[in-house]
Amino acid sequence: MQNDEIMDPRIIDGRGIADKIEDQVKREVEKLKEKGIQPTIATLLVGEHPPSKLYVKLKEWACKRAGIRSEVHKYSEDVALEEIINLIDELNNRVEINGILVELPLPEHIDEHEVMSAIKPSKDVDGFHPLNMGSMLIGKERFVPCTSEGIIRALEEYHIEVLGKNVVVVGHSNVVGKPTSIMLLNRNATVETCHVYTQNLKEHTLRADILIVATGVKGLITKDMVKKGVIIFDVGVTWVGEKVYGDVDFDSVIEKVKLISPVPGGVGPMTIAILMEHTIEAAKLQHNLR
Amino acid sequence: MQNDEIMDPRIIDGRGIADKIEDQVKREVEKLKEKGIQPTIATLLVGEHPPSKLYVKLKEWACKRAGIRSEVHKYSEDVALEEIINLIDELNNRVEINGILVELPLPEHIDEHEVMSAIKPSKDVDGFHPLNMGSMLIGKERFVPCTSEGIIRALEEYHIEVLGKNVVVVGHSNVVGKPTSIMLLNRNATVETCHVYTQNLKEHTLRADILIVATGVKGLITKDMVKKGVIIFDVGVTWVGEKVYGDVDFDSVIEKVKLISPVPGGVGPMTIAILMEHTIEAAKLQHNLR
Repeated sequence: MQNDEIMDPRIIDGRGIADKIEDQVKREVEKLKEKGIQPTIATLLVGEHPPSKLYVKLKEWACKRAGIRSEVHKYSEDVALEEIINLIDELNNRVEINGILVELPLPEHIDEHEVMSAIKPSKDVDGFHPLNMGSMLIGKERFVPCTSEGIIRALEEYHIEVLGKNVVVVGHSNVVGKPTSIMLLNRNATVETCHVYTQNLKEHTLRADILIVATGVKGLITKDMVKKGVIIFDVGVTWVGEKVYGDVDFDSVIEKVKLISPVPGGVGPMTIAILMEHTIEAAKLQHNLR
Repeated sequence: MQNDEIMDPRIIDGRGIADKIEDQVKREVEKLKEKGIQPTIATLLVGEHPPSKLYVKLKEWACKRAGIRSEVHKYSEDVALEEIINLIDELNNRVEINGILVELPLPEHIDEHEVMSAIKPSKDVDGFHPLNMGSMLIGKERFVPCTSEGIIRALEEYHIEVLGKNVVVVGHSNVVGKPTSIMLLNRNATVETCHVYTQNLKEHTLRADILIVATGVKGLITKDMVKKGVIIFDVGVTWVGEKVYGDVDFDSVIEKVKLISPVPGGVGPMTIAILMEHTIEAAKLQHNLR
């Protein structure tokens, strides 16, 4: 990301929004520490998946900046489900742990649903526990997935009204596509969710006032697929060597957008900042401070 | 419903599908009774809302047909939340109760979310507990809302492939619109959810291969709003005197449809039949019979 790109008013300043959230978190951490509470997040990392290791590192750095204590529990690829569940039980019971985070994806032989369901909902800062997902679905948002909340926060930050807008979400994953669709529906946008089985994707994306893309297919969205004045959130992450690319062909699409989140520097930093915020919320909840 | 209308191959025979499900339920009930288990559903009815009283009656009749024992707990409009929660606790603990049903809507002063959350998820035959809603959202469907499951069942019964189809759901209630959207998304349809804030509804409904309408606005969907060959599920219920109307202007729209569910005789009977089926599933689960 070049500095002159950040200055382009069409480019959503994900880093700037994240910094604002993190500053607030830092102040809250100080207040908690004055009360003798050291906010703490525990992360579970399984295997040697390089992006997962990087994301865990990025979260550790964010914790450090905010004054949150972080402990990372590393397991080899062949860990048994039972061992993971045992650790989660232990973390559930340790009062000094406020948030529990399982870095996804997990190896094939581990049932993700079972792992997520084992986390105490009040420590589920990632928002993936089915109870938290279900509360979100019925409009009682508690801990919600961080990327989706980051997108909502950015829309607020840029004063974009979503009520009645045509939102198209490309991707129907449990981690991004579905929760983002639901959170926008909760805010009375008209929401269409597309994915790999959608026929003639372009026909759908062309109708979007707000387009959210989370497929992991590099450059999927091209200039001809969006209308003039669209607002785009690019949640895609594809690594090519040391470089990371989004799902949107940024250089051509930018000509048509009102706003677009870049990759990197868009939803990534916001996601991590929201995670920090959730950890503080969890700590407050657990100590009856709100 | 006239008999000659039922014979029209474009009209979804909701009663017929329900009868098929109920026949299967009846056989399962007999098997359970041979094992000394009397499947039982407990219903909570608050106030004097006439449609609610009717629906409870319809469910009691269905229980009777299927051999399921039904107990109905009636409360006056001004009941306290605490009293309802106490009853639910009691029903949760009584081993002979397999399913617990709270007839909606509840009076304004009662927090529906709190009531639903109090039901033991394994007895939540209506599928509205946030844990069951969340499991559905992440694609692990357990108890799901009965109307949504009825629609899925009818699509299967008529051999309608939904993968890649354009589905438009009008209405984003927790009871029908949202769960139906999610269940069709889980089956890889492209799903758009519209509602009262949608701009130019007709533009959206015209694109539907499958249209599901659950708004409670009598005759909202007119002939000019659908494309030729559409499949429609009309979940609307508006009472005018003793007569009930759907959300679709049936008499004009029928000319353009491939299939349509009528009101009455469409999704209503299917919803109740699925509820009976869920009660049997709950009984089996609770007795480790599956």
